[in-house]
Amino acid sequence: MGLVVQKYGGSSVADAEGIKRVAKRIVEAKKNGHQVVVVVSAMGDTTDELIDLAEQVSPMPAGREFDMLLTAGERISMALLAMAIKNLGHEAQSFTGSQAGVITDGAHNKARIIDVTPGRIQQSVDAGNIAIVAGFQGVSADKKDITTLGRGGSDTTAVALAAALDAEVCEIYTDVDGVFTADPRVVKKARKIDWISFEDMLELASSGSKVLLHRCVEYARRYNIPIHVRSSFSGLPGTWVSNEPQGDQPMEQAIISGVAHDTSEAKVTVVGVPDKPGEAATIFRAIADADINIDMVVQNVSAATTGLTDISFTLPKTEGRKAIEALEKTKPGIGFDSLRYDDQIAKISLVGAGMKTNPGVTATFFEALSNAGVNIELISTSEIRISVVTRADDVQDAVRAVHTAFGLDSESDEAVVYGGTGR
Amino acid sequence: MGLVVQKYGGSSVADAEGIKRVAKRIVEAKKNGHQVVVVVSAMGDTTDELIDLAEQVSPMPAGREFDMLLTAGERISMALLAMAIKNLGHEAQSFTGSQAGVITDGAHNKARIIDVTPGRIQQSVDAGNIAIVAGFQGVSADKKDITTLGRGGSDTTAVALAAALDAEVCEIYTDVDGVFTADPRVVKKARKIDWISFEDMLELASSGSKVLLHRCVEYARRYNIPIHVRSSFSGLPGTWVSNEPQGDQPMEQAIISGVAHDTSEAKVTVVGVPDKPGEAATIFRAIADADINIDMVVQNVSAATTGLTDISFTLPKTEGRKAIEALEKTKPGIGFDSLRYDDQIAKISLVGAGMKTNPGVTATFFEALSNAGVNIELISTSEIRISVVTRADDVQDAVRAVHTAFGLDSESDEAVVYGGTGR
Repeated sequence: MGLVVQKYGGSSVADAEGIKRVAKRIVEAKKNGHQVVVVVSAMGDTTDELIDLAEQVSPMPAGREFDMLLTAGERISMALLAMAIKNLGHEAQSFTGSQAGVITDGAHNKARIIDVTPGRIQQSVDAGNIAIVAGFQGVSADKKDITTLGRGGSDTTAVALAAALDAEVCEIYTDVDGVFTADPRVVKKARKIDWISFEDMLELASSGSKVLLHRCVEYARRYNIPIHVRSSFSGLPGTWVSNEPQGDQPMEQAIISGVAHDTSEAKVTVVGVPDKPGEAATIFRAIADADINIDMVVQNVSAATTGLTDISFTLPKTEGRKAIEALEKTKPGIGFDSLRYDDQIAKISLVGAGMKTNPGVTATFFEALSNAGVNIELISTSEIRISVVTRADDVQDAVRAVHTAFGLDSESDEAVVYGGTGR
Repeated sequence: MGLVVQKYGGSSVADAEGIKRVAKRIVEAKKNGHQVVVVVSAMGDTTDELIDLAEQVSPMPAGREFDMLLTAGERISMALLAMAIKNLGHEAQSFTGSQAGVITDGAHNKARIIDVTPGRIQQSVDAGNIAIVAGFQGVSADKKDITTLGRGGSDTTAVALAAALDAEVCEIYTDVDGVFTADPRVVKKARKIDWISFEDMLELASSGSKVLLHRCVEYARRYNIPIHVRSSFSGLPGTWVSNEPQGDQPMEQAIISGVAHDTSEAKVTVVGVPDKPGEAATIFRAIADADINIDMVVQNVSAATTGLTDISFTLPKTEGRKAIEALEKTKPGIGFDSLRYDDQIAKISLVGAGMKTNPGVTATFFEALSNAGVNIELISTSEIRISVVTRADDVQDAVRAVHTAFGLDSESDEAVVYGGTGR
């Protein structure tokens, strides 16, 4: 039996009852003979309450101090969790990110892990303790200041520790049963996925699936750490994310892993761009200089008669105003006709490594959308993903139609429509 | 202009408004040309809320984890305070006890400071920042675990930092105007003391005055750091505690500094102790082995006819049961008659270095009590203090009578009755 890293999110430790329930689950793993390292987030609403306090004293909370403030949240949850475990007769010690050796760069509020030196954690578990580590936080290499890792930071802490401690698995406990073939709130017949490859999970994560963030999966893939996403409430097995299927899972992967959707983006179209070298570069340099991450980019062939083309791209709605302002400044140099901004869009993505070798997938996808009366506005593909942009109002119909068309519905006898390798 | 350490208690930073008010006061000191280091406690009720959470998950919160939990409180207040200062256009950085170099022993929940290495703080203020330091916390020298300093810990942090940074003064901001000649809730005519010596302050603190704790004053005396206790609300000058009067304060000390009272103690009497060597030692060894701190000890000459004597001592009420149990066990060996326990007592103390050279003080003290109809049950004295034990019901009458008798009432023309050196 090796070492297991378990991560519990804020909703799992929202109150004293939650903390006691989580403590029992941790002790269970310890009793099964594992060395156990636990990464924990701040309790339920703690972070929001702290942000609220910060806004009361300062309209623009500063980076370093904001991190110092927010990290108090995990300090509370981890100490309480250690106490609850001790109360069950097992030894536990809690450690801040800094004490656990989570070394980051100095980018406050969105630091990146640059090294993990888990000497104290290894010592603690070797001495028979359960080690509890604060998620989401680290210490900067240069100034020794407290940093936070930004969105999905606790999951990343867990995977990074699992890699540094050479753990068997990183278990991410959450409030859902695992990764589903579609968002179960939209598709009632969505099925829990037993196993998914890192690659497919990465595509789902960047296409709107919220269970795991891209960053955490990317880290796990790089260090080949299997992730097991599961519910802290039900105790059922969840979804394994890894290079290879685990245990008795079928060796061959499903053609389609799932359908993801994302309504957080907006679409910008630059209309009437002269079709000559360098214009697209100027446009996207302006966007990059404004520190805006874009997602899909589509340019079609230019009309022969005018020599003009349109360039469309999607980006987070929150960045919309900034992008338009940045582009307006490029207008004199480029001489495009106009800008169109549209935030009533949705992105629907079909993800699955099997589509590489199954040419019918794209056709089935578009037919399903067409039959559901959904119009396609943009298309973008990778080797293992097809994404389309539709009207926001169509998103639920579109996701359900695609989910059914690919035989992903849970009551279907035929789980996989192409190839039939099954899972 | 040198370096000033300011300490703000939990009631001064109880909410966002309080934090903003304190931030303004800090910036004022900075604008006056001082280097400023601020020690801050947890906001208002934070600590109680954290203790409450701990009790919900564990009936007996453990030392190490309890400290980890409680220290989250200062982390919140210090980060918010730094943000509020930055919002006023001044640079501020917050530091945990560990970052500030507060090194302690490993006694969780009641650690003692063994060294202060304030390199980061000095660097921060030299770079023009206001440094905000978490009170009440440190890091253990051996295991590098987070520790808390117990009661009065934040005041002690402030004084220790002031000593290590060679500060001009340690300003302790609180919710009262300073140290008074008696508790103003009991004696309406109590006067604020402008200056008091370390020695008199130490006696007041151990006699029931709650403004400063003995531990903090002792530290300040050892390193000769002047303390200025003052209100964070009024902005008025408060009480200076130091070896010598400050500025234009009269050079000669008042004969009587003040009257303190304490109703937190109980009295234990061991009745009929054989008057032979070693019996008292056996009794107090039993008490010491039970880890109980005692205060006054009184033994009178034994009755010639019986060869038996009574030994009385006072101790915190909270230790009463433990003391009686410990003493019951010594009964077979000593053969005393019985134990009496009485928690309806009060201790009234008169403190002032001047009493050493003014023989009338004791007589005036006892006359005042007698005139007020207050019976004296025990008497104990030091060079600069007289303490008596009375019925708890008599405490207010007793304190007022003594305060008046020594001319301490604020409307009296004659502030000092003996010697007339005045203040």
